[in-house]
Amino acid sequence: MTAHALVYGGAGALGRALVGQFRKSQWVVTSIDFTPNVDATHNVILDISTASDLEKSGLDVEKKVLDVWKGADAPKLDTVVNAAGGWAGGNLADEAIYKNVATMLGQSVNSSVIAARLAGKHLKEGGLVTLVGAAAALDGTPGMIAYGLAKASTHHLVKSLAGSGSGLPTGAKAVAILPVTLDTPMNRKFMPDADHSSWTPLDAVAKRVYGWAAGEETPDNGGLYVVTTKGGKTTFENKA
Amino acid sequence: MTAHALVYGGAGALGRALVGQFRKSQWVVTSIDFTPNVDATHNVILDISTASDLEKSGLDVEKKVLDVWKGADAPKLDTVVNAAGGWAGGNLADEAIYKNVATMLGQSVNSSVIAARLAGKHLKEGGLVTLVGAAAALDGTPGMIAYGLAKASTHHLVKSLAGSGSGLPTGAKAVAILPVTLDTPMNRKFMPDADHSSWTPLDAVAKRVYGWAAGEETPDNGGLYVVTTKGGKTTFENKA
Repeated sequence: MTAHALVYGGAGALGRALVGQFRKSQWVVTSIDFTPNVDATHNVILDISTASDLEKSGLDVEKKVLDVWKGADAPKLDTVVNAAGGWAGGNLADEAIYKNVATMLGQSVNSSVIAARLAGKHLKEGGLVTLVGAAAALDGTPGMIAYGLAKASTHHLVKSLAGSGSGLPTGAKAVAILPVTLDTPMNRKFMPDADHSSWTPLDAVAKRVYGWAAGEETPDNGGLYVVTTKGGKTTFENKA
Repeated sequence: MTAHALVYGGAGALGRALVGQFRKSQWVVTSIDFTPNVDATHNVILDISTASDLEKSGLDVEKKVLDVWKGADAPKLDTVVNAAGGWAGGNLADEAIYKNVATMLGQSVNSSVIAARLAGKHLKEGGLVTLVGAAAALDGTPGMIAYGLAKASTHHLVKSLAGSGSGLPTGAKAVAILPVTLDTPMNRKFMPDADHSSWTPLDAVAKRVYGWAAGEETPDNGGLYVVTTKGGKTTFENKA
């Protein structure tokens, strides 16, 4: 039976890299995002009108995945990846702090909770859940308070998922990748003069997540993998 | 000049203990909650209709504190404590997981962000911010996923506030107390048969927070103080 990956945020920059990587290896891919990813096998389109309401959007997604999978024969997933996320700077003095906290929690925590819940329902025994944290959030982030607290929360979710009785199937693992800076079009736009050679190519992340999901490499359950790129070489180190 | 404490969640069980402790020592106390605390000097009443919207409720609170303080002469606070919080159990299989995540983030993270923002605006140099975390959230919490991720996020906020450039005034400190179980009426109701001698009396927490705020004892900036009670004796140990 063909392997099946679910990519939450499958139409974003990282999501597209992931969907492309899994499809290149002939996996079935279900993408969940506000817009379809034409490369995916199945697309679940999020409802923008309920996006800020975790319960409504979570229940909506749960129903829609069954719809695209044609209900009864809902497939068992080999892997679930949450590629959704965002970034916001600002300390306590930032007038946008409330808005930024709500946005960061929505983009990182809510999406990760929905992805985790889908894994609880549809992941195969021994399957893998991968979320996206942030290397910076391993310490305090006084200059980007909202971003740090949301990513720290995501790291904690990985620890919970990796624990006994989390609701993931037997033998399943949960990990996070913690990038420093991903080489995305958005980051290029906002940081045109940065040293791009230390940014991590999306393909490097997609290849590693694929390798873990396909069983080519075995990540540590509960691992928080800091992703560092130097001189074109990307390394993944578990800092949990 | 009389010392001034702001207690967010000042009408809850822990909040009442804190307000009582500060008032007993003749401090001015501003309580912020959905209901007034008659023992407080000033009461800011939260708007229940916007409670789930961090931006609306944050801006509403910012305006209302100036109103109760009569605007122009807004006092400089000696300490800010967030006593708001809640608890929810449940793993991925819990049908209420989405609702619980939203509730926990609202009760713990949103309240802490508003308290921190008020501290950024009104705390004195060298003042203290105290938030409430959870000892359990220092590790994964697979059986109470929503609670753990919200408390871990609160711990991270403390680390950020303690860092340089967070927007707290010069010399200010931020700490969290991380209870195991507080001896509240709610916990007595739901766990009537538990060993109450290992629960922490609210007064023990209130006295410690008062001692820190009054300068009788000096907490570590960024400290995550696990609160343990054994045989009637309560200890506070920084596990950051």
